[in-house]
Amino acid sequence: MKKVKNQINSLRNKKNLTYRPISKGLEGMLFKELKVLDKGYVRVVDYMGNDSSVVQAARVSYGKGTKKKSEDEGLIRYLLRHRHTTPFEMCEIKLHIKLPIFIARQWIRHRTASINEYSARYSILEDEFYIPKKYHLAEQSLSNKQGRGREIDEATAARILKILKEDSLRSYKNYSWMLNEKNSFNHDSNRASLSRELARINLTLNTYTQWYWKIDLHNFMHFVSLRADSHSQFEIREYGKILLKILSKWTPLSYKAFLSYRLNSAELSMEAINTIKKMISGKKVTRSKSGLSNREWKELESLLF
Amino acid sequence: MKKVKNQINSLRNKKNLTYRPISKGLEGMLFKELKVLDKGYVRVVDYMGNDSSVVQAARVSYGKGTKKKSEDEGLIRYLLRHRHTTPFEMCEIKLHIKLPIFIARQWIRHRTASINEYSARYSILEDEFYIPKKYHLAEQSLSNKQGRGREIDEATAARILKILKEDSLRSYKNYSWMLNEKNSFNHDSNRASLSRELARINLTLNTYTQWYWKIDLHNFMHFVSLRADSHSQFEIREYGKILLKILSKWTPLSYKAFLSYRLNSAELSMEAINTIKKMISGKKVTRSKSGLSNREWKELESLLF
Amino acid sequence: MKKVKNQINSLRNKKNLTYRPISKGLEGMLFKELKVLDKGYVRVVDYMGNDSSVVQAARVSYGKGTKKKSEDEGLIRYLLRHRHTTPFEMCEIKLHIKLPIFIARQWIRHRTASINEYSARYSILEDEFYIPKKYHLAEQSLSNKQGRGREIDEATAARILKILKEDSLRSYKNYSWMLNEKNSFNHDSNRASLSRELARINLTLNTYTQWYWKIDLHNFMHFVSLRADSHSQFEIREYGKILLKILSKWTPLSYKAFLSYRLNSAELSMEAINTIKKMISGKKVTRSKSGLSNREWKELESLLF
Amino acid sequence: MKKVKNQINSLRNKKNLTYRPISKGLEGMLFKELKVLDKGYVRVVDYMGNDSSVVQAARVSYGKGTKKKSEDEGLIRYLLRHRHTTPFEMCEIKLHIKLPIFIARQWIRHRTASINEYSARYSILEDEFYIPKKYHLAEQSLSNKQGRGREIDEATAARILKILKEDSLRSYKNYSWMLNEKNSFNHDSNRASLSRELARINLTLNTYTQWYWKIDLHNFMHFVSLRADSHSQFEIREYGKILLKILSKWTPLSYKAFLSYRLNSAELSMEAINTIKKMISGKKVTRSKSGLSNREWKELESLLF
Repeated sequence: MKKVKNQINSLRNKKNLTYRPISKGLEGMLFKELKVLDKGYVRVVDYMGNDSSVVQAARVSYGKGTKKKSEDEGLIRYLLRHRHTTPFEMCEIKLHIKLPIFIARQWIRHRTASINEYSARYSILEDEFYIPKKYHLAEQSLSNKQGRGREIDEATAARILKILKEDSLRSYKNYSWMLNEKNSFNHDSNRASLSRELARINLTLNTYTQWYWKIDLHNFMHFVSLRADSHSQFEIREYGKILLKILSKWTPLSYKAFLSYRLNSAELSMEAINTIKKMISGKKVTRSKSGLSNREWKELESLLF
Repeated sequence: MKKVKNQINSLRNKKNLTYRPISKGLEGMLFKELKVLDKGYVRVVDYMGNDSSVVQAARVSYGKGTKKKSEDEGLIRYLLRHRHTTPFEMCEIKLHIKLPIFIARQWIRHRTASINEYSARYSILEDEFYIPKKYHLAEQSLSNKQGRGREIDEATAARILKILKEDSLRSYKNYSWMLNEKNSFNHDSNRASLSRELARINLTLNTYTQWYWKIDLHNFMHFVSLRADSHSQFEIREYGKILLKILSKWTPLSYKAFLSYRLNSAELSMEAINTIKKMISGKKVTRSKSGLSNREWKELESLLF
Repeated sequence: MKKVKNQINSLRNKKNLTYRPISKGLEGMLFKELKVLDKGYVRVVDYMGNDSSVVQAARVSYGKGTKKKSEDEGLIRYLLRHRHTTPFEMCEIKLHIKLPIFIARQWIRHRTASINEYSARYSILEDEFYIPKKYHLAEQSLSNKQGRGREIDEATAARILKILKEDSLRSYKNYSWMLNEKNSFNHDSNRASLSRELARINLTLNTYTQWYWKIDLHNFMHFVSLRADSHSQFEIREYGKILLKILSKWTPLSYKAFLSYRLNSAELSMEAINTIKKMISGKKVTRSKSGLSNREWKELESLLF
Repeated sequence: MKKVKNQINSLRNKKNLTYRPISKGLEGMLFKELKVLDKGYVRVVDYMGNDSSVVQAARVSYGKGTKKKSEDEGLIRYLLRHRHTTPFEMCEIKLHIKLPIFIARQWIRHRTASINEYSARYSILEDEFYIPKKYHLAEQSLSNKQGRGREIDEATAARILKILKEDSLRSYKNYSWMLNEKNSFNHDSNRASLSRELARINLTLNTYTQWYWKIDLHNFMHFVSLRADSHSQFEIREYGKILLKILSKWTPLSYKAFLSYRLNSAELSMEAINTIKKMISGKKVTRSKSGLSNREWKELESLLF
């Protein structure tokens, strides 16, 4: 732990001179470990561009040079509101992320990003597993087939945590036994060492892995809007929150527009708009005449009341 | 098993009339399970286009209409040789694949494809795990850090297989215990059911999953060239072989060109070309003067001698 | 013209038997030229999948087999409403499109598609140019810097059309002169023929080109939602309308959901939602207290009143 | 012109402090106009990462921390030789490019990049056209249908240049006339102004446009390998050369590896490898027995002799 801090300090000891634009907020965060879950983290390791880069790219479209700084925010809000997304592709960020494999499997579904993952064909994974906090263990939701319901009772929760810990650890110990690494303390020279690419298949899905992940600002915001959403699994939402914080430091104007037009916005269907029109004009509207399904009606109610 | 056969037979009972081009070879294979590893499979479930579609797309570039059929093969070979890859994007294929999670994690690195995977947040995985054949258990390679060396001795292999089987099964049983499904035979109504999205993190990486995977012909060939390669892990190569067989049925002319210009071709560096020139002119060439690294020299030798 | 009809008839003369799913609506349209603008067209030349393919892909995620047909529409609407877009990637369509170059330049900004364009380096373009109808000539909009305002007066319009016709034609004639093609009627054997890749740079942006364009259903709908939008240039909207018609034939359930949740939906910002809440509860809301910009306020008014 | 120099100087007057890695070579080039063709240019406006970023990303795969600097070059060469391309995606560059429209149309075929182009719907294009040098005017190639042959004779060349200049200029003048801009010196207030999105369709394909173009190092090298190739059109090759120069400054180690394994390498087909084997062993090989087509045989000869 102390070693890691020293390493980060050493990275932050040296500053370079550059002609490139910088993001002051993000410079203050660079290389630092932002903790997530029990053993995970996110570290910003590089970036390109800031709010002004978005403005600059948009203005080449409009054939205009520099403008008053005060107009930048308006332009950024306009771009995001009208889904003119290409100028947001002009910024880029690179993160070093440590995360459990089952989250990595969700994360990688976003295809418009670059990834280099720690290779367990080549190297040996460490004995680190995600074990949820007791109060994060939840029952299967009855209303939402892919969600969580209420908290699990104390006694059952304790047994579940015991299982998760024991199975992770046993699988890992057997992984080590099969690897039979030459420089490990219990190496047995009379026994063959199984190749790493095979031994790893015995590990459980809560084992931690790590990767470099590079993505542009537009896709970064899209990722956050999906993963900070309440339909997302709690564990990846914890990463989503950290990414949101990074966004607020990196491009504060885009961040504010993102809150208005993405994270806290809502898309209304043709039928929902018609329903609202009637409501505003004071008419009584019932579900049955609205053209909305039961579920949509409930969603609209929870949005408006 | 019989049930699956009946289902496939029912899919193959009914033919439809279409104006679209068809691939006779692939029609004969449609919906059938092609076995891979111990419990995996690949099934072609849909496709679009054939060798003629490649030719048709290339010829719009050349502003030409129909031509003699006999010239198609020449054109396809020309396109592949010169990496004019866009006409090969004009064909598409969709597969239903059952594969272990650790292979799914390699597979998904190819980003230019569409995927729908079985969701373990929503549904319950079955108790199926990849267990290697004894003669596929291999030692860690000494020369290649991410490869396999010689076969593991009988006694150690037996112990390894025992571990893989026991750990998979125990993890699965505990997964079921935590799920505590209402309609399962040993349901305990006095105990809370853990949400599926959490229970699954206890499973091992050799658990089978399944997905639909859709990709165009160009990216399909790229995938095969990487995954049928000897540097690839044995288990994914087994899938690569099946894909190669599918390719031979779907687009036989593209398949033949693919063998010549991708699968069995070699890229020679500037330095390797110069070395070969000297060899052909009868000059003696040594490694030290060739400009090639030790490794490159060996690779060139194994290519040529 | 008659020749083209014969060619299409010959393509539609022959039906093939296939095990693949078909779209009855689209089969009726296959290969037929759908006219756009003065000389452009769109032809469906191949496709893969239908509404059931979307359902099938979604259900692998849910680990379920076949279901009642009547539930398909509900599932498709659910998927589109919640932006679960990957199942819509499981269908694919291929079009043959003839369009002016200035439209092709907008069209190609959509990157998630495959294209093979007629090559003017290799072949000779025909003397076909887009000339707008007189009543489509519009003044520069005063409110929208990238839009059109009212119709141009008769006299000016006539002069503009004369310019467009003459300049296109003169540029084309000089293109032909520079090409000095051997088998052209006015070939001059005493004069060198300029390479095609250079001669073409003299052509005007309204010259027609053509290409094959292949895209999946998700990206197709995204393209239509952008290009059928009123902010889009009139000429590309004309193509958007035809694509919308194709969508209605190909996947009628997805088409209906698309109308509700994309084409006629609206995204409301955090501030707009708060404003609506107040309106419904009967409070008086003013622009200044709403947090909305002038422009956003107007957009909200035109949506609701 | 002087104004532009002042602007660049002002951008280069101010340096910022950053914790990010820098590329010394590229810092020296930042913002400066690198001339291409008669009126085009390329300017580096931002970047992220350097050779070390490639190494860093590769080493996360291998689970290793820092290593001796001297081993970096070997690793980069290994990665490029074996097409381990993902670590090269970890660097990014952003360029401001001025180029004729017919080149922009080729350029944009590379889909894995971000672009913001000057919008002629919104703004007015300047009267700048690409006019080739007399000695770059070439006849249509007889052997290569999409290439150039020998230089055009003096007299014809002069007439061609006259055409290109006159047609570009006339089209532009009529464009201006139709625009009838309010603040132009010959504005006619009695006449309607045609919308910009329509007026522009009268311009010729050699008109200059400009855009921001952002791409990662892997795709940058892929672009250069295609566009610096002799099969590419001369005019885009001129841009390719400048990009190659930028590469040499940005990531000198990757640049050297790129020369060896991409730009000056050759891919040999299965049949070509067999032919070379025979040649080296001293056997006489004829075209007819080689399995190579006439064209492939010639390509092999020109590579080896």
